[in-house]
Amino acid sequence: MISGIEFSGISSGIKGPGLDLGLVLFKEGMNSLSLYTRNRVKAAHILYNRRIENNPVRAILVNSGCANACTGKEGISDLQIIGNKLSSLLKIRKEEILFASTGVIGRRLPSDKIIRSLPALLKDLKETQVESFAKAIMTTDTHPKIVRETFQGKKRYNIVGIAKGSGMINPLFATMLAFIFTDYPARPDKIKRGFLNSAKETFERITVDGECSTNDTVMLFTKRGAEDPKGLDAFKDKLYSVMKELSMMVVRDGEGATRVIHILVNGAEKKEIAEKIARRIATSLLTKTAFFGCDPNWGRIIAAVGDANVPVQPSKIEITMQGELLVKNGIEVPFNEEYLKKLMNKNEIELVVNLHNGKASYDIFTTDLTYDYIKINASYRS
Amino acid sequence: MISGIEFSGISSGIKGPGLDLGLVLFKEGMNSLSLYTRNRVKAAHILYNRRIENNPVRAILVNSGCANACTGKEGISDLQIIGNKLSSLLKIRKEEILFASTGVIGRRLPSDKIIRSLPALLKDLKETQVESFAKAIMTTDTHPKIVRETFQGKKRYNIVGIAKGSGMINPLFATMLAFIFTDYPARPDKIKRGFLNSAKETFERITVDGECSTNDTVMLFTKRGAEDPKGLDAFKDKLYSVMKELSMMVVRDGEGATRVIHILVNGAEKKEIAEKIARRIATSLLTKTAFFGCDPNWGRIIAAVGDANVPVQPSKIEITMQGELLVKNGIEVPFNEEYLKKLMNKNEIELVVNLHNGKASYDIFTTDLTYDYIKINASYRS
Repeated sequence: MISGIEFSGISSGIKGPGLDLGLVLFKEGMNSLSLYTRNRVKAAHILYNRRIENNPVRAILVNSGCANACTGKEGISDLQIIGNKLSSLLKIRKEEILFASTGVIGRRLPSDKIIRSLPALLKDLKETQVESFAKAIMTTDTHPKIVRETFQGKKRYNIVGIAKGSGMINPLFATMLAFIFTDYPARPDKIKRGFLNSAKETFERITVDGECSTNDTVMLFTKRGAEDPKGLDAFKDKLYSVMKELSMMVVRDGEGATRVIHILVNGAEKKEIAEKIARRIATSLLTKTAFFGCDPNWGRIIAAVGDANVPVQPSKIEITMQGELLVKNGIEVPFNEEYLKKLMNKNEIELVVNLHNGKASYDIFTTDLTYDYIKINASYRS
Repeated sequence: MISGIEFSGISSGIKGPGLDLGLVLFKEGMNSLSLYTRNRVKAAHILYNRRIENNPVRAILVNSGCANACTGKEGISDLQIIGNKLSSLLKIRKEEILFASTGVIGRRLPSDKIIRSLPALLKDLKETQVESFAKAIMTTDTHPKIVRETFQGKKRYNIVGIAKGSGMINPLFATMLAFIFTDYPARPDKIKRGFLNSAKETFERITVDGECSTNDTVMLFTKRGAEDPKGLDAFKDKLYSVMKELSMMVVRDGEGATRVIHILVNGAEKKEIAEKIARRIATSLLTKTAFFGCDPNWGRIIAAVGDANVPVQPSKIEITMQGELLVKNGIEVPFNEEYLKKLMNKNEIELVVNLHNGKASYDIFTTDLTYDYIKINASYRS
C-alpha cells in the first residue's frame, strides 16, 4: 500500500463477466517514465500517450479484452472521448491521464460501455485495491502479478509493481503491461538510465513464444517533490528487484508452460554472440518441445547454437544441463538418460552452453512448448 | 526408372525394424552438384563429402536413424571405414562414394551393423527399387517422397527426385535430404546457377518449424558425356518442377501439420522487405496456431508484420485470406467469421499481405502448428 495511490478494478463488459477495467489515481501528480513495444504496429494507447505525455500524471486507465490496436484514427479518438469524460469526473486535466490496453487486436474499444462504467470504477478506488486492478488487466494470465518492496532513504519508501503477461511474450521487450509505483521522489532524468538498464536485464530477458506484441508497455511512476539522494541507490536496487520478479512471474505464467528454462551462454568472444545464441536456443521449437518431454536432447540445442548466424567452433562446445555435463568438445559425454530425465522433470531447468572461446556471456529465460500452448492459442482469440 | 541407376533400401538395425539404409549405384560415373546446410554445426557426411568431392561419382550411401553429427573425428573415420568396405565390394574407388545421414544428433554410426548389411544392400540393387531407397531415408516422414518427370532433348530424358523431410525444416535451406537423378548429360558448370536458383525458389521457400538441421543436403546427379544443348532448357524447367514438387511434399508432410499456408507478401518497396515479413509470419507461433484453429486472427498476422524489423506503414496494410478481404488501410473490413472459419478449414490456405508501398513481392509456404507437432517432438528423439 502506498499512501496517495488508489486502485480499482471492475467488470465493464468488454470481455464478458470478468474484471476488465482498471484505474489508478494519484492524489498528487507523479513523474512517469514509459517504455513501449518495438513492434512497428503500435496500439492506439501508445500513439496517444506519446502525443500527450508530459508530467505530472494523475491517472492511468487500463483495460483488458481489447488491445485497441489497428483501429486507426478511431482508436485514438475513442481514447480522447473516454479521457474527456474521465477528466471531468475526476476533476483533473485530460493531459494528466494515460491509457493502456491489452487483448484482441483490431477491435475498437467499446467506449460507451467504458464510459458507463466509470462511476462504479471511481467509487471502487482504494489504496488497498491493488489486486482488483491487477486482475482487471489480465488476459490469459492464470493469476495476478504483484510485487511489493520497501527500502530506506531519509525515510522508509514503498515500491509496488503490477504486471500482466503470458502469451505474445517476445525476447526484445517482453511483457505486455507492467506498472510500477513508488512514493520515493525521483527525478525522471536521474533514474531513466537505471530504468532502461533494468528493463534490459529483466523484461528483455524472457521469452514465451518469440512474439512481439503491439501493446507492450512498462510504466514507472515516482513521486514528485524534494529529492532524497540518500535513498537513490536503494531505490535503484529495489526497482531492479521488482522488475526482475515481475518478469519472472510473466515467464513462469507463460501460456501452457510447465517449466522455465534458464539458458546461460558463456565463454563467448563477445556478449552479442552469446546473446544471439541464447535467443536462438530460447525460441527453438524443437528445443522447447524437448524440454516439455524432459528429453535431454542436446542435439537440438547444438543445432540451435549452429543456427544462430554467428561464428562458433563446434568442437569447443560444452553443454551442461542441471549441473550434469552432456557435451564436451562438441561430442557427447556418456550420461544416464533416465537420471537426466528425472533431473529435468522440474519447474526450473538450468542449461549452460560454454563456447570456450572468450569471456562474454548472456542469459535468458524461456518456457517449454506444450499441448496447452496450442490449446490456448488455437481457440482463444487474443 | 533411369537406365544405369540402381537403388536399394534395407533394414540394417540402426533404428530397429524399419528400413534405414539406402544405396544408389551408378553404372557409369555421374557428375554431381551438392548444396549443404547453412548450420555452423555440420554433420560428418558434409565434412567428409566436401573433402573428397570430385566427379565422377559412382555411389551414394544414405542412412536414417543416426545423423552422424557432433561425432567429432570418429564420425569422419566411421565413414572412411564404411567407404573402404563399400568400395572393395563394389569394386570402385572410395573417392567415388558420397554419404548422407539423417536422424538423431550426437550418436556415432553403428559401422559394424552397416558393414554387415552391405552385402544384402548390394544384392537388393535394382533400377526399379526407388521406393525402397526413398523409404530407407525417412525419419518422421509419413510417406516416401518421389517425383518423376521426363523431357525432350535430342532424345527423351528422365529425371527422378527423392526427398525426406518433415521436422527441423527451416526457411533458409529447407529440406533434410533430397537427391535428384537424371540421364541428361549436363556439365556442372553449365547448370550450377540454375540448380542454386531453383533451390532458392523451392527448398528455401518452405518452413515447418524454423529449425535448421545439421544435415540438410540436396544432391543432383547428371550423366557425363556428350552434351545435348537442345535439351538444356527443358532440363532446367523439369529440374525446377521436381525440386518444387519435392519441397511441397516436404512441407505438406510437416510434422503434425494439418494444412499448408501459402504466404504472399506483395506491394513491398524491396524484395528483401517482403521476404523478411513473409518469413516472420511463416515462423510466428501465434499465427501458425491460429491457422490450426481455423481462426481468421489477422491481428496476429499484422503483429508479425510489425515485428519483422523492417519499415512498414501500418495504415496501408491490406490482408486477404482465401480471397476474402479482412483488412484494408490497416483496419478491419467487417467479415463473417463463421464463413471465414469454413474457408480456412482446408488443406491449403492462401494468405496475401499487401503493403501498398511498392512492387516487390516474396512468397513462402508454412504449416500450421498442432498438438501433433508437440506430441512428435516431446517424445521422439530426433
